[in-house]
Amino acid sequence: MRRMRLRHLALSSLLLVAPLVHADEGMWTFDSFPSKTVKTKYGFEPTQTFLDHLRLSSAKLGGCSASFVSSSGLVMTNHHCAHECIAQLSTAKKDYVDTGFYAKTQADEVKCPTLEVTQLQSITDVTERMGKATKGLSGQAYADARKGEMSKIEKECTTADDVRCDVVTLYEGGKYVLHKAKRYQDVRLVFAPELAIAFFGGDPDNFEFPRYDLDVSFVRIYDGGKPAKPSDRFTWSTKNAKDGDLSFVPGHPGRTSRQKTFAQLEMIRDVALPKRLLYMEEWRGQTLQYEEKSAEAHRTAKTQRFYIENDVKRGRGRFATLLDKAFMATKLAAENELKSKVMADATKKAAYGGAWDAIAKAESDYRNFYDEYLYLEGERHGVEGTWGFRSDLFAIGKALVRAGDELPKPNEKRFREFASSNVVALEQELFSDAPIYEELEIFDLTFSLTKLREALGADHPMVKKILGKESPKSMATRLVKNTKLRDVATRKALYAGGKKAIDASKDPFILLAKLIDGDARALRTKYETLVEAPETKSGQQIAEARFAFYGTSSYPDATGTLRLSFGRLEGWKEKGVTIAPITTFGGAFDRHTGEEPFQLPKTWLDAKSKLDLKTPFDFVSTNDIIGGNSGSPVVNQAGEIIGLVFDGNFLSLGGDFGFDPAVNRTVAVHSAALLQALEKIYGAQRIVDELRAK
Amino acid sequence: MRRMRLRHLALSSLLLVAPLVHADEGMWTFDSFPSKTVKTKYGFEPTQTFLDHLRLSSAKLGGCSASFVSSSGLVMTNHHCAHECIAQLSTAKKDYVDTGFYAKTQADEVKCPTLEVTQLQSITDVTERMGKATKGLSGQAYADARKGEMSKIEKECTTADDVRCDVVTLYEGGKYVLHKAKRYQDVRLVFAPELAIAFFGGDPDNFEFPRYDLDVSFVRIYDGGKPAKPSDRFTWSTKNAKDGDLSFVPGHPGRTSRQKTFAQLEMIRDVALPKRLLYMEEWRGQTLQYEEKSAEAHRTAKTQRFYIENDVKRGRGRFATLLDKAFMATKLAAENELKSKVMADATKKAAYGGAWDAIAKAESDYRNFYDEYLYLEGERHGVEGTWGFRSDLFAIGKALVRAGDELPKPNEKRFREFASSNVVALEQELFSDAPIYEELEIFDLTFSLTKLREALGADHPMVKKILGKESPKSMATRLVKNTKLRDVATRKALYAGGKKAIDASKDPFILLAKLIDGDARALRTKYETLVEAPETKSGQQIAEARFAFYGTSSYPDATGTLRLSFGRLEGWKEKGVTIAPITTFGGAFDRHTGEEPFQLPKTWLDAKSKLDLKTPFDFVSTNDIIGGNSGSPVVNQAGEIIGLVFDGNFLSLGGDFGFDPAVNRTVAVHSAALLQALEKIYGAQRIVDELRAK
Repeated sequence: MRRMRLRHLALSSLLLVAPLVHADEGMWTFDSFPSKTVKTKYGFEPTQTFLDHLRLSSAKLGGCSASFVSSSGLVMTNHHCAHECIAQLSTAKKDYVDTGFYAKTQADEVKCPTLEVTQLQSITDVTERMGKATKGLSGQAYADARKGEMSKIEKECTTADDVRCDVVTLYEGGKYVLHKAKRYQDVRLVFAPELAIAFFGGDPDNFEFPRYDLDVSFVRIYDGGKPAKPSDRFTWSTKNAKDGDLSFVPGHPGRTSRQKTFAQLEMIRDVALPKRLLYMEEWRGQTLQYEEKSAEAHRTAKTQRFYIENDVKRGRGRFATLLDKAFMATKLAAENELKSKVMADATKKAAYGGAWDAIAKAESDYRNFYDEYLYLEGERHGVEGTWGFRSDLFAIGKALVRAGDELPKPNEKRFREFASSNVVALEQELFSDAPIYEELEIFDLTFSLTKLREALGADHPMVKKILGKESPKSMATRLVKNTKLRDVATRKALYAGGKKAIDASKDPFILLAKLIDGDARALRTKYETLVEAPETKSGQQIAEARFAFYGTSSYPDATGTLRLSFGRLEGWKEKGVTIAPITTFGGAFDRHTGEEPFQLPKTWLDAKSKLDLKTPFDFVSTNDIIGGNSGSPVVNQAGEIIGLVFDGNFLSLGGDFGFDPAVNRTVAVHSAALLQALEKIYGAQRIVDELRAK
Repeated sequence: MRRMRLRHLALSSLLLVAPLVHADEGMWTFDSFPSKTVKTKYGFEPTQTFLDHLRLSSAKLGGCSASFVSSSGLVMTNHHCAHECIAQLSTAKKDYVDTGFYAKTQADEVKCPTLEVTQLQSITDVTERMGKATKGLSGQAYADARKGEMSKIEKECTTADDVRCDVVTLYEGGKYVLHKAKRYQDVRLVFAPELAIAFFGGDPDNFEFPRYDLDVSFVRIYDGGKPAKPSDRFTWSTKNAKDGDLSFVPGHPGRTSRQKTFAQLEMIRDVALPKRLLYMEEWRGQTLQYEEKSAEAHRTAKTQRFYIENDVKRGRGRFATLLDKAFMATKLAAENELKSKVMADATKKAAYGGAWDAIAKAESDYRNFYDEYLYLEGERHGVEGTWGFRSDLFAIGKALVRAGDELPKPNEKRFREFASSNVVALEQELFSDAPIYEELEIFDLTFSLTKLREALGADHPMVKKILGKESPKSMATRLVKNTKLRDVATRKALYAGGKKAIDASKDPFILLAKLIDGDARALRTKYETLVEAPETKSGQQIAEARFAFYGTSSYPDATGTLRLSFGRLEGWKEKGVTIAPITTFGGAFDRHTGEEPFQLPKTWLDAKSKLDLKTPFDFVSTNDIIGGNSGSPVVNQAGEIIGLVFDGNFLSLGGDFGFDPAVNRTVAVHSAALLQALEKIYGAQRIVDELRAK
């Protein structure tokens, strides 16, 4: 179950009047990469071959990015991208998060319960087809037609279980593309260092620089029980990247909001973000102290806390940017400029003039049921909890109840997460044998039910219906202690049995999911009708207006699909201080205090004399990235790996809303540090050999 | 030690163009009470005798309000105002917070370690004298002169230890008055019900209505070991107050920000309040789970959690009001109106025209060192922790270190909290034998040191200086385990020994306080020079401008001093629903679920058959109050007690910034509920007899 979003990096302040794209700005799609701009600025013009090589050697891994780095299916990503898998494979006796993991032989590689790796094969423009399907519609009819057509296109494309097809919305609806990818669901853990060095400096150093982290893990994709052979792969650079070197980052930035209207940004600033931050801060506090209960509580809850703390810090950075008056003024000016161009042209005014007000109205409507929607249904669907029910078991129960209702429907009438193209992923999550910890479930469910009551009020009809005369803790305990859903076979039986089996079930989580399902569905319809439909429709109009006045030479907001950014290794200036772009192994030993989170693992302390302390460790570059780019390779102009993205600096956190070339920096592990650590500290020679092979 | 602010209620949305005062709005000073307005609206004109009776029968108790209710010194206030005392008197074996407390005879009454009760005796205008002292000065010179003169006036006034003198700043500096009060420091606990009924509904029902709380406690003031005889007292109403009845509330509203400039409100909205809320939410979460560790952890930490949760909910209400665009637009319009009047008049422009910009600049400067100031020095002085050091022991250490430096100085040169008129209160707190719990100290100090590192960054010079190579937890544990400051005699010796004893001390908290003292003092000076001085000076100018154009018929912002509000018992309408103004005992039994926080105490369940279930329990009225008014009596036009203020409704929480007569409500316990509960549930006949005596 993946309740937590994987780390989303993010980016910063100042910036961006609509048509202007800054130096090094952009999360470019591969079909409109500005090779000429790169040539002008850096003297190197990427060819189609170069671009194809980068695209096909790149992988997506869960909510992260990754790369193929050997001809035998070795995949490189961040430690924090495989963190959940590493935790799931751990037990009370052997905690690989603490100790690290290294499969000495291929036979020792262990399957990750829920990881999926995909390789993008083709991109097809389906804008016209989507346009036809939704023409003249609005409200719920528009939402239904749009999603129905997406499911239809995806189903037609999905010719086998190992093919993954996704219709992707670009430019807020200005363009639709179909992504066809090869999917690998047998993904095995090969290597991960200790968390203490993968995340050296912990939360205090997260999103900061200088940095000294070896945030790497290696997994291997399998096909029919044998290592898969990807069509393309990256090779390792033989020359260390240095200050000023050109850098490319292919990867899957998750989401940016740079094209959102001012009303949408205000909603994020005044409602969504503060609510999220306050919720997360309490959850963080509770989890931290929950971990103090016992070693087992610490082991089972620390991954959750890691994601929460990451989310909090990211949220603080995004919040700071939206509270920056100068930044918001620039956003408003850009919007007003485009608006006045539209209003001055009668045809365009008729076609696009109402878009901004329509979005403002949608946001205003959304505010009125935002809490109910988030707590009872949730913005993210699939096998995932909501704000009111932070529980894997509830998420499973809800997915089973909905599967019983949705799967019998025609494909294009289903909720998107049950569309045929998504069923493989759904089943992987639903039938995963990843451990579910009873005590942690009770803890999280108690917390979230308490927040549900707090947000909606003790007298809200849904709160009364859910809690009855029970306290959140009593209810959570009763449900978790009495459910059978921890058992994968039970889930499979209920899934196979369909609606009839669900209706006959007395499992408390099935009963709870059924109890709220009608209201939760009603809220989802309300959201789709009042918010999503008008915003997508109007977003499309604004995108078209932008194309009309500024051309199509800009990049779309990030949507979790493959993009390419360019830049170079470069420090920055902050409060008058110049920050150098590259740290060294020696710096890590200087920062070691012996106390968490500044405690180097024993392997490092023992190996110190064998290391070249001048070896570059981490570096920053001007590449434009965001959360989801974690695990992206950094590549030189020969198409070789020079680093591994794992973070952004703090000033980059507002990058969700705009890119500031002066201070926005990508943070990566240097390729030299990766090799030397594998060789000298971990004795992982077989990995080094694979990486070095040409 | 009083690290937590006592409950601050607060009030709501819409409203208030500068000169207009709404029906029932106002926290009036006794020397300018609008008796004529009351007469016009309610047909009753308060006389001077009536006003004097209310003033002299009112008391201040810590950060709360209270009233004299018998001729033998019985004082009525809220349970939550005496909560800390009740907790301090409890032990692991006997927890009076849970069980309640009743002294069957006078001999059983127990002294509260840190409570102080005062009765206001006289008010003198000292505006002219203050004006002379600060004339022509600015920056640090202005700040020094202003505070020096205050200390001087107070010292002249303080003729005995039981006299408390405070110079109070009204109208942001437009007026200064000297309050002379009689002080009682021997305050003994007489009665408190169980927390389960004092705070029935807990955090979910806090700041809500309908409500069913018996939030009362009785203490008694002593003089020379005998019950004191206050000069005035309230008697009990023999007729139950009902819907529509006129109500007066004398009390000590703590602080409102209704006259603050727009720039100040923006600073609260964008910086101060979000930072505070996020800090508090994590602390709340940690405390909640800390309490799960053991019964003793729960007992010793629950009072702290109570104050934190109260602060969080209050903060959320205030935040909602400041995020209300319509409300902020009204504020801006009012400011612009006054500003344009000033600018249109050459003389006034010269005198006041620069005030708004000066305040905006001060706020902008403040943002640059806000975190450092809050974490290292703190906005509130005296024996109190800061954001970075939530620890009674640290607060004691800091007070001792500063006492060593400050007390030898001439009175008017000292920090205000060490001025001679404040020494009695300082010593009461410093030498209190209130328990300090080792584990809770470690917990709170660990939390706050972690937040200090988070807010300033691991590489901030002060963070490095403080933590060195230790983690927050290691440092907190070392300090708490090795200090001797839990011992009152040690504190007394260090205090008596002065700077020499402090310099010789190796106590870890003394060493820590000394380590940061230079930097903390520098931050305080920076705050006083860059923020406080220009804001007070400019605030005074704006107040004068306001007097010039709108007259002096309005009330000043709350400042913790005695005020009087008027109104009537009245429900309100919210989202189309009308909320009736009075609840009954029967309603409490309906709301009882048997699960915390909706669990009535056993005494209530046992006594149910003896109770008249139609008895009015709690009520709401239109009185304009705010935090600090907790414990205020509600009085009818005969000057008799008809209720006891303990809260405001949720819509009142924005009242910090403005009063909305349509929805702003005071929440009080009805006098009938108080008497019946004392008599039928608690068998506290001797209290009932005292209350009923004429």
